Amino acid sequence: MLNHRFAKDLPFTEGEYKRRLAKTRAAMERAGVDILWVTDPSNMAWLTGYDGWSFYVHQGVLVLPDADPVWWGRNQDSNGAIRTVWMGDDRCIGYADNYVQSTERHPMQDLAQRLIGMGLDKLRIGVELDNYYFSAKAYMTLAAELPNAKLIDATALVNWQRGVKSEEELVFMRRAAKISEKIVDGLIERVEPGVPKNEVVAEVQRDAIMGADGHWGDYAAIVPLLPSGSDAAAPHLTWDGRPFVKGEATFFEIAGCYRRYHVPFCRTIFLGQPSEIFLRAEAALVEGLEAGLEVARAGNRACDIANALAAPLESAGIERGARCGYPIGISYPPDWGERTISLRAEDETVLEPGMTFHFMPGLWMSDWGLEITESIVIKEDGAAETFCNRPRKMFVKD
Amino acid sequence: MLNHRFAKDLPFTEGEYKRRLAKTRAAMERAGVDILWVTDPSNMAWLTGYDGWSFYVHQGVLVLPDADPVWWGRNQDSNGAIRTVWMGDDRCIGYADNYVQSTERHPMQDLAQRLIGMGLDKLRIGVELDNYYFSAKAYMTLAAELPNAKLIDATALVNWQRGVKSEEELVFMRRAAKISEKIVDGLIERVEPGVPKNEVVAEVQRDAIMGADGHWGDYAAIVPLLPSGSDAAAPHLTWDGRPFVKGEATFFEIAGCYRRYHVPFCRTIFLGQPSEIFLRAEAALVEGLEAGLEVARAGNRACDIANALAAPLESAGIERGARCGYPIGISYPPDWGERTISLRAEDETVLEPGMTFHFMPGLWMSDWGLEITESIVIKEDGAAETFCNRPRKMFVKD
Repeated sequence: MLNHRFAKDLPFTEGEYKRRLAKTRAAMERAGVDILWVTDPSNMAWLTGYDGWSFYVHQGVLVLPDADPVWWGRNQDSNGAIRTVWMGDDRCIGYADNYVQSTERHPMQDLAQRLIGMGLDKLRIGVELDNYYFSAKAYMTLAAELPNAKLIDATALVNWQRGVKSEEELVFMRRAAKISEKIVDGLIERVEPGVPKNEVVAEVQRDAIMGADGHWGDYAAIVPLLPSGSDAAAPHLTWDGRPFVKGEATFFEIAGCYRRYHVPFCRTIFLGQPSEIFLRAEAALVEGLEAGLEVARAGNRACDIANALAAPLESAGIERGARCGYPIGISYPPDWGERTISLRAEDETVLEPGMTFHFMPGLWMSDWGLEITESIVIKEDGAAETFCNRPRKMFVKD
Repeated sequence: MLNHRFAKDLPFTEGEYKRRLAKTRAAMERAGVDILWVTDPSNMAWLTGYDGWSFYVHQGVLVLPDADPVWWGRNQDSNGAIRTVWMGDDRCIGYADNYVQSTERHPMQDLAQRLIGMGLDKLRIGVELDNYYFSAKAYMTLAAELPNAKLIDATALVNWQRGVKSEEELVFMRRAAKISEKIVDGLIERVEPGVPKNEVVAEVQRDAIMGADGHWGDYAAIVPLLPSGSDAAAPHLTWDGRPFVKGEATFFEIAGCYRRYHVPFCRTIFLGQPSEIFLRAEAALVEGLEAGLEVARAGNRACDIANALAAPLESAGIERGARCGYPIGISYPPDWGERTISLRAEDETVLEPGMTFHFMPGLWMSDWGLEITESIVIKEDGAAETFCNRPRKMFVKD
C-alpha cells in the first residue's frame, strides 16, 4: 500500500506506468546497468508522472531493479513530486536549498550521499550523459563522490523505450492534434498584411492553452516559430512586433500539447501571389510528403521515408541537407522531439506500429523557406495515419 | 568593415556590445582563461545578440582575446546567426546536419576540429561546466578531442559580468515591467470561482505577447505558475483545466518579457474570506518585503536583504528555508534568473548600482503558499526602486 498524502490526478493508469517501468528495467539489464539516474524531464515524467517547471535546478529519478523509483530534487519541489508521481510519498526526497546555485556545494554531493546511504554506491550506474539538464559538472561531481561506482553512458536509454505509444498515449496525442488544427485554422484566418507578428502569436498561445474539443491545452516545449520572407531561411527565429508583409511567405511551426504530449503541425501562408519558385517547391514538397507517407509503414525503415521524400525534391532541383523528421510524444522544453530515430538516409531503424513522428521536411534555402508537415502514427497495416486533417498545401491569401 | 548580408535589428548599440566583450575579456584574464566557450543561450545572446530557439542542439559562442567572437552551431541555424549577431557573417560557422542526435558522431568533434584548424587547441579553454545545455557528453568529447588543451571551469563567468545593467538594458526592463503590470491587472480582473485555470493562463499568455505601452511582448523563460490551495505548497506546478475554487488562495508567478529581458512579478489572489493564518502571513510578508527593500542599497550585501526579510517572518512564526531572490535580466528557458548571487543569509556579495533582482520571498508551507514579490534595481543612492507599481498585498475577492 503506497502512502499518499494528497489525492492524485495521474495522467495514466497504474498498468501503463508498470509497463513503462518493466520496459525500462529490461533495457537497463541489456545495457549492463544496475541502477539508472534519469535527469531528462520528459523521461522523469514518462516514468513517474512528475510534472513541474523545476528542471532549471538539479533533479532526477532513480530507477532501481527491485523497488519503486525514487524522485530526488530541491526541497520545495518535493512538494510538487508528492502531488504528481505515482510512487509513495516516502519515495520523494528533497535536498536543502543552500545547494541551489551555490559555489561551495553541489546538489550531486547530496545525491551521492543518499546513494551511499542506500548501499548503491558500488554498482553500475547508468547516467544520461547527453540528455538535457545533466551538466558536465553534475557528472564530474557524481563521479568524484562515488569512486566505487561505475558510471555508464545511458543517454537516450529511456527515450528509446518511449518510441511505441500505448493506446492511452495516442488518446492524448489525438487531443493535442485537435489543438494543432485549431491553431492552424486561426492562423489562416488572422494572418494579413499589416498585422504585427506578435499579435498573431498572442492569439496562437491563447488558442493553444484554451484547448479544443473540451480538453485544456498545455504549454508546448517550443514556442511558435514564424519567420517570414528571407528570414524563413532560418528555422528557429521567434517573433517581433513587425507586421506581415504582402509578397512574403511565412511558415508557422507550432504544436498543440495535451498533458505534455505534442503533435507538431506546420503550414506556410503566402500573402500575395507566390512566384514560380514557390509554386514549384510546394508541388515537389507535397509530392514528397505523400510519397513519404505511403512508405511510412510497419516493417519499412526510417530511411525509406527520407528517400521517398528526396526523389521528387531532387527532380525539382531542391537539395535538403537536414533530416526530415523525428519521433514525438511527451516532452518538456527545450525540444518536443524524442531524440532517438532521425528520418534520414542513414537511419535504418525499422518502423513499428504505434511509433509517432513529426514528418518535417522543412525547406530552408538561402533566402526563403517553406514548411508543410504532418505528424503521423505508424499503423499495424497500411500507410501512416496523419494526426491532423487540414489541406496539405501552402495557403495563399491574395 | 564587417561583412553583413542582411540588415540587422540588433537590440543594443555597438558600444554596448563592445563594453560587454571588454568586461568578459577582463574576467577571462583574471580567471586564467585564454579563450572561452559559451553555451548558455543567455550568455550567447548577451555577448553577440544571437536570438533563436535552437538551444536544443549543441551550439555556442567562442570568445577570443583579440578577434571578434565566433558563433558555432547547426548549419540551418547559422542562417539565424547571420541575421541576429553583430559580428560579420564570416564569424558564423555551421556544422553538418548528420551530427544532430547521431549515435556515431558528436557535434563537439566538429568544434574540436575547428579549434585545431584555428591553432587554438593548445590553450587554456574556459567551459561552462554547470551552465545550461553543456552536457556531460559534450565536455567529455571536447576533452578527448583536444588532448593538448587545458579545459578550465568557467561556470557563470559571463553571468557575473551581466549583473550590473546598463541604461540600455534598464530601458528594456522597464518595458517588460509594464507588461508584468498588465498581466497582474488582468489576473485580478479575471480570476473568479468556477473559471478554469487554463482559460486564465490563455489570457495571461495573450497579454504577455501583445505587450504594453506600444512595445511587443516576448516569451518568458518560464511559463506562468499558478498553484492553488494546498498545491500552492509546491512552487513549480503549472496548470490544468480545473476551476478556481472559493476559499482558496492562488499565487501567480509570471514575468513580462521584452526582447529577452524579464521582470518577474508575483501576486496572490484569495477567493473568499482568508483565514487568520493567511492574514497574519500576509502582514508579516509585506513587512519583511518593505524591510528588505529599505536595505537593498548600494554598499549593503545580498544577505542584508535576506536578514531584513527574515525578522518579521520569524516574529510571526514563519520559517523560510529557501533563498529569497536572485538577479534578473536577459534569459532563455529554463530559467529567468541570472544564477550568480542568491539573496540568502550566507551570500555576502556587495550590492552595486544597476544590479537588478527578483526579491522573491515565496512562502511554500506544507499545505498552503503565498507569494508577494517585487523586481528591483539598486540605485546610486537610497533604497531600491521597484520596477512594477501595484499594491503590495494579497488580493481578496469575496
